[in-house]
Amino acid sequence: MVYMDNVAGTKPDKRVVDKMIPFYTEKYGNPSAHFYPLGREAFEAVDEARGYVADLIGAENDEIIFTSCGTESNNLALKGVLDTEKTKGKDHIVISEIEHFSVQNVCMKLMNEGYKITKIRVDENGKVDMNALEKAVTPETALVSVMHTNPEIGTVQDLKKVGEICRKNEVLFHTDAVAGVGHTEVDVYEFGCDLLSLAGQNFYGPKGSAALFVKNGVKLNPLFDGGFQEKGFRSGSENVPAIVGLGEAARIAKKEMGEYVPRMKKLQEKLWNGLDEMFDFIHFTGDRNDRLAGHVSFWIEYIEGESLLLWYSLKDVYGASGSACSSNIQAEDEDELEASHVLTAVGVPNDICAGSLTFSMSKYNTEDEVDRVLEITPEIVNKLCEMSPYYNK
Amino acid sequence: MVYMDNVAGTKPDKRVVDKMIPFYTEKYGNPSAHFYPLGREAFEAVDEARGYVADLIGAENDEIIFTSCGTESNNLALKGVLDTEKTKGKDHIVISEIEHFSVQNVCMKLMNEGYKITKIRVDENGKVDMNALEKAVTPETALVSVMHTNPEIGTVQDLKKVGEICRKNEVLFHTDAVAGVGHTEVDVYEFGCDLLSLAGQNFYGPKGSAALFVKNGVKLNPLFDGGFQEKGFRSGSENVPAIVGLGEAARIAKKEMGEYVPRMKKLQEKLWNGLDEMFDFIHFTGDRNDRLAGHVSFWIEYIEGESLLLWYSLKDVYGASGSACSSNIQAEDEDELEASHVLTAVGVPNDICAGSLTFSMSKYNTEDEVDRVLEITPEIVNKLCEMSPYYNK
Repeated sequence: MVYMDNVAGTKPDKRVVDKMIPFYTEKYGNPSAHFYPLGREAFEAVDEARGYVADLIGAENDEIIFTSCGTESNNLALKGVLDTEKTKGKDHIVISEIEHFSVQNVCMKLMNEGYKITKIRVDENGKVDMNALEKAVTPETALVSVMHTNPEIGTVQDLKKVGEICRKNEVLFHTDAVAGVGHTEVDVYEFGCDLLSLAGQNFYGPKGSAALFVKNGVKLNPLFDGGFQEKGFRSGSENVPAIVGLGEAARIAKKEMGEYVPRMKKLQEKLWNGLDEMFDFIHFTGDRNDRLAGHVSFWIEYIEGESLLLWYSLKDVYGASGSACSSNIQAEDEDELEASHVLTAVGVPNDICAGSLTFSMSKYNTEDEVDRVLEITPEIVNKLCEMSPYYNK
Repeated sequence: MVYMDNVAGTKPDKRVVDKMIPFYTEKYGNPSAHFYPLGREAFEAVDEARGYVADLIGAENDEIIFTSCGTESNNLALKGVLDTEKTKGKDHIVISEIEHFSVQNVCMKLMNEGYKITKIRVDENGKVDMNALEKAVTPETALVSVMHTNPEIGTVQDLKKVGEICRKNEVLFHTDAVAGVGHTEVDVYEFGCDLLSLAGQNFYGPKGSAALFVKNGVKLNPLFDGGFQEKGFRSGSENVPAIVGLGEAARIAKKEMGEYVPRMKKLQEKLWNGLDEMFDFIHFTGDRNDRLAGHVSFWIEYIEGESLLLWYSLKDVYGASGSACSSNIQAEDEDELEASHVLTAVGVPNDICAGSLTFSMSKYNTEDEVDRVLEITPEIVNKLCEMSPYYNK
């Protein structure tokens, strides 16, 4: 099996799982019950994990709020920050055209509640147009939310520039860094962001573990009311094993990213070049340089992304077509299914592009696996070309 | 160690953990990526778990929405159901006086938004006054929320009666059954409820696993917008290992509750009688018969609950004073800290009661452990009596 759908979730690091298991078997205390050792031990483990997560992104410990998934972090950031001290009376939100569904759909809901949403265009490589962003921000703008790394096309934004624009205009800045944290340098102070979402399952941590960085001084209206855990920003019994796993994943990423990222970059280049040399009618998406390591995304003229995906999966090579997060959406017709909002935004022509394919590698992928993908690709693509009415046979 | 704070979280069943671990180590697929076997396997595991949870409470599979904790389930139920088809224009919510913080504090917030909240009184055993409930419901009532089992005093409500009142008045009915599910018979159709919250950590499942039963036909506004997982009621990548663990916990509870609950009842009676015979100045809280199995809660005249807790914990016996969920609340003064809203509601006199103690057992507690608690109690209580200015030495 060649697993190259790591933007949909990575295999947890063995050290992460090993550190979590005792919190299921023996250390099952509730951190809020810190009157006795079993609870205190859980409390201290959460505290330690908070330190590792903070350390990975250059934050203070008390700026980390644990949540259950990236979607929750994004929802908490966007909904939570509205109608607080710094945003009161402001009814305008700026996002990019290529945000994750959990940012896009929150904004759709907010639009129905009367907020004005501006979507900033991206160029053909998926990079946010900074001039357009600068012009879009007004005194009514409550929040700018621009994602760090797009999982579908791999593009990494210049968040330092976004941060400068936000600071100059005294606007709060959130970034969905779920696909980027653990794979590229993420420093909240370098970015100048006020809120940042991350999720463990994207960098060898467990499912069900995520966090929101909330800069000191920024207030949030919580999504959950209850027992005031997580400074009151996120009530609910702490998911201690998941938090411990997230902490361990952060510790490992901080220490080892310098080793595995360059290796993944090399594999990415090998796969990219190999595919590029094979076909004239292949088009790569996203920015080649400012890019998630190990991420190769492309479309082939007239070939359906989902057909490619299926044929690869029959050969035990697993990639993605669009984002896993979009697969629950019921498309009204076939055209709608094919045109991802991200591909449309980067100007992929709807008439000759019938969906794209994303291979996203992890630190566990090997050169042999890249070779395997390259080896089976001609047969798959040729077969699909033969089946397509657009190719001369 | 004698762990008797199981309302704050149970030790997961070994079978639960064993079933979860492969979903961290090898079966790490994203259920939304069901194009390939690794994702499909995760999808099917979630589906199977949904069946077990549904089966435990007498629901249909598609009536189970997975969430991350009991607090999330309660928030989703109460906030989600407002301003939908069945509640539009209605601005009144009825709860009991002894609800969990996640119901109480949601209602506090809703009150600030203009909703009217009626809190139904309970009698000295913590049972909801059904006449008062019946009178409180009006055509403006959107929702009645009455908890199944109170974790602090152990009382189990007659939800069938609550359900009848709600159906007669065509009002939606939610119950927070987090402390009850897995320990008593819970059947959503017998209760006639529309929404029911449960959490894995309360019945030998993992932390971070919970669900909300949403009766078919009941609509919810989600707390999280995003990729439309869980019928769109709860977007966000599924926490597959936790869901699998919750399913296994439900399967085991359904099969084995008939064995362990009577055993826990016996231990409860032994502890209750033993303590009762020891002191004249001990007062038990909650209903003795309609009660969470293995739950014994009491207060001793003039003795601080937290002091008792501390002395027991020094002897490696762990119980609770108040609820773990309330320990993050910063009390403004000492009096406020002592008077839990639950104790106040059951009419415990503030002048002679200085906090209560709760021992909540699990299926793992033994008769030897009950003997141990009974053995060390006289020394602890006598010491605290000696320290108290209210007792004649």
